[in-house]
Amino acid sequence: MKGLKTRSAILDHAADLASVEGLEGLTIGRLADELQMSKSGLFAHFGSKEELQLATIEIARERFMTEVFKPALGTERGYPRLVAICRGWLDYIQRNVFSGGCFFAAASFEFDGRSGPVRDAIKKTMDEWIGAIEKAVRLAVDEGHFGPDVEPAQIAFEINAIFFGANYAYNMRHDKRAITRAWNAIETRLEGLRQSPRPARFAHPEKRVARRRAS
Amino acid sequence: MKGLKTRSAILDHAADLASVEGLEGLTIGRLADELQMSKSGLFAHFGSKEELQLATIEIARERFMTEVFKPALGTERGYPRLVAICRGWLDYIQRNVFSGGCFFAAASFEFDGRSGPVRDAIKKTMDEWIGAIEKAVRLAVDEGHFGPDVEPAQIAFEINAIFFGANYAYNMRHDKRAITRAWNAIETRLEGLRQSPRPARFAHPEKRVARRRAS
Repeated sequence: MKGLKTRSAILDHAADLASVEGLEGLTIGRLADELQMSKSGLFAHFGSKEELQLATIEIARERFMTEVFKPALGTERGYPRLVAICRGWLDYIQRNVFSGGCFFAAASFEFDGRSGPVRDAIKKTMDEWIGAIEKAVRLAVDEGHFGPDVEPAQIAFEINAIFFGANYAYNMRHDKRAITRAWNAIETRLEGLRQSPRPARFAHPEKRVARRRAS
Repeated sequence: MKGLKTRSAILDHAADLASVEGLEGLTIGRLADELQMSKSGLFAHFGSKEELQLATIEIARERFMTEVFKPALGTERGYPRLVAICRGWLDYIQRNVFSGGCFFAAASFEFDGRSGPVRDAIKKTMDEWIGAIEKAVRLAVDEGHFGPDVEPAQIAFEINAIFFGANYAYNMRHDKRAITRAWNAIETRLEGLRQSPRPARFAHPEKRVARRRAS
């Protein structure tokens, strides 16, 4: 069966391998050993190490979005969706979606001092992710769940930081309380930003109508 | 002058190189190229890649402690020292003490999925550092700056997470506001934990005596 693995099966394996050993260690030779494929078979799929790295980032991005981000989009926008994103991320770490912890946390810290297309691809995915958190915070402001002075970029920075801290504590320290600590930190922060429900005169027009009808 | 560099000059260079390219990429051959030394000259200092990695971690630890932790010990214990540690860390990132950002953040995320002596050495240094933050929080509780219900391990987890987030935003995103955002996050959190000065009847005995004498 040598050489008969599909491109996506190869890349799935590559993403897990890179999450453990780093993207820089992801060579065609190393992957061929792991998959018991010939190097020439892998070269047929990927012409170079860099091409393999970039394709691996793309499949890791898809896995991440499917596992963490997309499920949260089913939740009501504003505060509930922001909470769903955070819970989804912590759940993703506990489920060991990548063998070596969060692929993008590892890749970010591996490539933050470098330049080139691989770094750019990691940064782009992380920008997209942090932008998604930022947008969820902004919607919570728009919905009136948070006060208007809440700065989405600041809160997204903090949530992303807590994710890094959780990934570290869970995978490096094997701290059984890592997830609880991360959730406590996020909950304390977000609860502190909530504003009390608006008084009736500021409520949404439909709700006021409903209230009048009911009374 | 080939081969005449001292062990500590070699390791200083190795620590910077590893902060950019990762500890796994730190081979004797790679370092020999960088330093324009012979591989045999480096083998005389370090018998193996692993020995080189471990010695590099040790010198990075010394640099970190000298640059970040020791200066803070001169500050009054409790809340002021905790703040000094946090400011010292953020300052360390801005001063680019390692060429590629925080050596230990990079090493932690590189080795969190692995096992062996290199991982253990990184974990030990990080445990020491997080333990130092935890101790600073505990002293702030003991001094009455924080309430007795503050959990040092939780706060140390959060501060360390913000450090990771700052390192990422500063080095990967080149976010000019990274340091300000990190400081805002830490200040908001720590200020929220402060308790008002205790009323006179709870003050330290000597202070009560002094107060009586003064009156």
